[in-house]
Amino acid sequence: MTQASICTIGDEILIGQIVDTNSSHISRALNAAGIQVTRMLSIADDRAAIISALGTELENNSIVIVTGGLGPTKDDITKAALAELSGASSYKTDQRQLEIIHGILSARGLDLLETNIAQASVPDTCEVIPNRLGTAPVMVFRFPAGKYGHESTLYSLPGVPFEALGALDDIISDIKAHNHVSDICHRTVMTFGMAESALAEMIAPWEDSLPAGMHLAYLPNPLNGVRLRLSMYGEGSKEEEERMIEAEISKLQNLLGDIIWSCCDDTLEACIGRKLAEAGKTVSAAESCTGGMISAMLTSVPGSSEYYLGSVTSYSNSVKTGVLGVPAETIGTFGAVSSECVAKMAEGVRRITGSDFSVATSGIAGPGGGSKEKPAGTVWIGVSSEEGTETYRMFFKGDRKRNIERFASNALNLLRIKICKETTK
Amino acid sequence: MTQASICTIGDEILIGQIVDTNSSHISRALNAAGIQVTRMLSIADDRAAIISALGTELENNSIVIVTGGLGPTKDDITKAALAELSGASSYKTDQRQLEIIHGILSARGLDLLETNIAQASVPDTCEVIPNRLGTAPVMVFRFPAGKYGHESTLYSLPGVPFEALGALDDIISDIKAHNHVSDICHRTVMTFGMAESALAEMIAPWEDSLPAGMHLAYLPNPLNGVRLRLSMYGEGSKEEEERMIEAEISKLQNLLGDIIWSCCDDTLEACIGRKLAEAGKTVSAAESCTGGMISAMLTSVPGSSEYYLGSVTSYSNSVKTGVLGVPAETIGTFGAVSSECVAKMAEGVRRITGSDFSVATSGIAGPGGGSKEKPAGTVWIGVSSEEGTETYRMFFKGDRKRNIERFASNALNLLRIKICKETTK
Repeated sequence: MTQASICTIGDEILIGQIVDTNSSHISRALNAAGIQVTRMLSIADDRAAIISALGTELENNSIVIVTGGLGPTKDDITKAALAELSGASSYKTDQRQLEIIHGILSARGLDLLETNIAQASVPDTCEVIPNRLGTAPVMVFRFPAGKYGHESTLYSLPGVPFEALGALDDIISDIKAHNHVSDICHRTVMTFGMAESALAEMIAPWEDSLPAGMHLAYLPNPLNGVRLRLSMYGEGSKEEEERMIEAEISKLQNLLGDIIWSCCDDTLEACIGRKLAEAGKTVSAAESCTGGMISAMLTSVPGSSEYYLGSVTSYSNSVKTGVLGVPAETIGTFGAVSSECVAKMAEGVRRITGSDFSVATSGIAGPGGGSKEKPAGTVWIGVSSEEGTETYRMFFKGDRKRNIERFASNALNLLRIKICKETTK
Repeated sequence: MTQASICTIGDEILIGQIVDTNSSHISRALNAAGIQVTRMLSIADDRAAIISALGTELENNSIVIVTGGLGPTKDDITKAALAELSGASSYKTDQRQLEIIHGILSARGLDLLETNIAQASVPDTCEVIPNRLGTAPVMVFRFPAGKYGHESTLYSLPGVPFEALGALDDIISDIKAHNHVSDICHRTVMTFGMAESALAEMIAPWEDSLPAGMHLAYLPNPLNGVRLRLSMYGEGSKEEEERMIEAEISKLQNLLGDIIWSCCDDTLEACIGRKLAEAGKTVSAAESCTGGMISAMLTSVPGSSEYYLGSVTSYSNSVKTGVLGVPAETIGTFGAVSSECVAKMAEGVRRITGSDFSVATSGIAGPGGGSKEKPAGTVWIGVSSEEGTETYRMFFKGDRKRNIERFASNALNLLRIKICKETTK
């Protein structure tokens, strides 16, 4: 099986100022193409460290994907390190990339600076895949079998995420043209509302009887519940492996019932969007403690304007009463964090937007701000339609960010359940 | 200088199903404590790969921090690999961790399962730091100088992010108790509105004359602009290094003027929050294309209820007219994506919430949906106060997610500028 290593270069990663998301995107694309990622590595903007680390990765993998350190600024030294690693004697200018650089800068009305021109200059030991989305080209270094004990190829990509991802299709085509690539099968089952350990105990007998060569992984995620991933690594034919995984997923569905909300890698917001679009129904949101996160999640889905009408984030009580029409007496008697208030919020936003469904939250994300009866981490969630309004109380024990995420994902899950129930009759 | 490597273990990272955020948090904490992170590595749930990779990291670093692979499920094999690496002859039960496990499960009303009890069992070669936030304890393996050429310590942490982060203080105390730790100085300057290459060209002479031992890094971020980071690695005294960095930041402020919006590691939303709280002013938002993201960013700041009143996400035109009071003729004549509409949205949300300031967006995030005059990527941003309403047109060329981020961050930046101007007279 063709094996790859992914290396990100940049001090900013090692001091923790940015989170590396490129490696995750790249590995997903490589896996889908049947290339196994064995390691991911982040190293400093340090010439010796880059050369030493990349040499080791090339010894152990036939493909090494490098991102970062190609920027126009002085702290970026990947290109010089790759020139040394590959024994380049000089640099050459790639005319196709130079034209792209011209185009990008003139479209933005910017002058062409020397640092921009230098981006098209590459070691004479590499092939170039032009980068249409930015100024730094993709460099391809091919090493003969004599160098690392087997033929190996290093691809150097820009660190800017959308440029790195934009180059992936070209790189995977190049890998497939030069290597024998077998198939990997992955299938993901999405669950919500059950903790990892309880889930594991519940499905242990099923897991123990999985066919040889089939692997199960648990992937807990605060926004989408616990994902279960079944994998087979190209030991049989792709069709046979898909059939085997499909059979195991059927057994799992019988075991877990409606804890499973999707049998593909999915998000709650995309699932809700599909259900609403299919039924020709619309939704709105009234958010207090979630502060806009539910709306941002719902509208992250392309085409969401088809079913999402809008929302009110009512952080202050005056917006709850004045905009959403929650009676002041409701807040006075029961408090803003109450079943009564969240029901009125859900009904109010449905009335003012004219949506078929709505979801509302009112809670205390923390830190601090709660009471003995309603400690930080408490949330009331309401879901409403013309068939009625239901409310739920939940409690979580995290920091502010984690609580907001849990509030929002549980609200979306309750909304999903209500939509499924009322649109599939 | 004490050097550390951070290793995350888990197939889910290598196939790209989750993004590793632990390494970033851990490295930030280590750097702040004066420990240099030389590498980050992600490896598979594979016993041989774990043992081999951790051995290499222990040879090259005196500290190795491992996260992940300690869950209660069968795919987690880190503990067994560490037992083998450290030459353990048996397992022992840590009574303190067992008590914590009891407490966590009974608080949740759950039965104690065998898999839960097994979490308190550790190789006899390790010391335990109890984990109060979860069931898997932190394991500390100390290797004498004879093993890897120098004394080295491996800390194994749970992979669940809030548990891993919760253990960091204890681990850093332990590192400081056993190693000589020198100081690292980092200072970050935040800029907005200038591309990395233009910024680099503008400050090149200053950069070239930086004192020896001082390093500059450029960290572009779609949400907060380009961060500039100055670092010194403990060659002089901490006070001396801080003074030197301070002097360079003063020069940079003279060069860049109001492109710099903060001289510490900051977010636009936190900066806006401080300005509003200081001035005793309030804010609201009317969002169309940003779909709740501006609100979610503003409310991510603890204490934001002091100055943030609420928002309306008006995705449909009926919410723009019905809730925000945008005249139907405005939309009919100029379209929803227009200076006129976004001004009415900003004024409307200020009126219905009673806030002092407001920000509004209307644009086309894509994919598709635009026209020749207003292609996808176009946004109108409005900012309003009793002193008046201003609107701005901007254009970005990214995918949906990236466009939404750019729209939201530019809206926050324009809001910040208006607040600064009007509250510091």
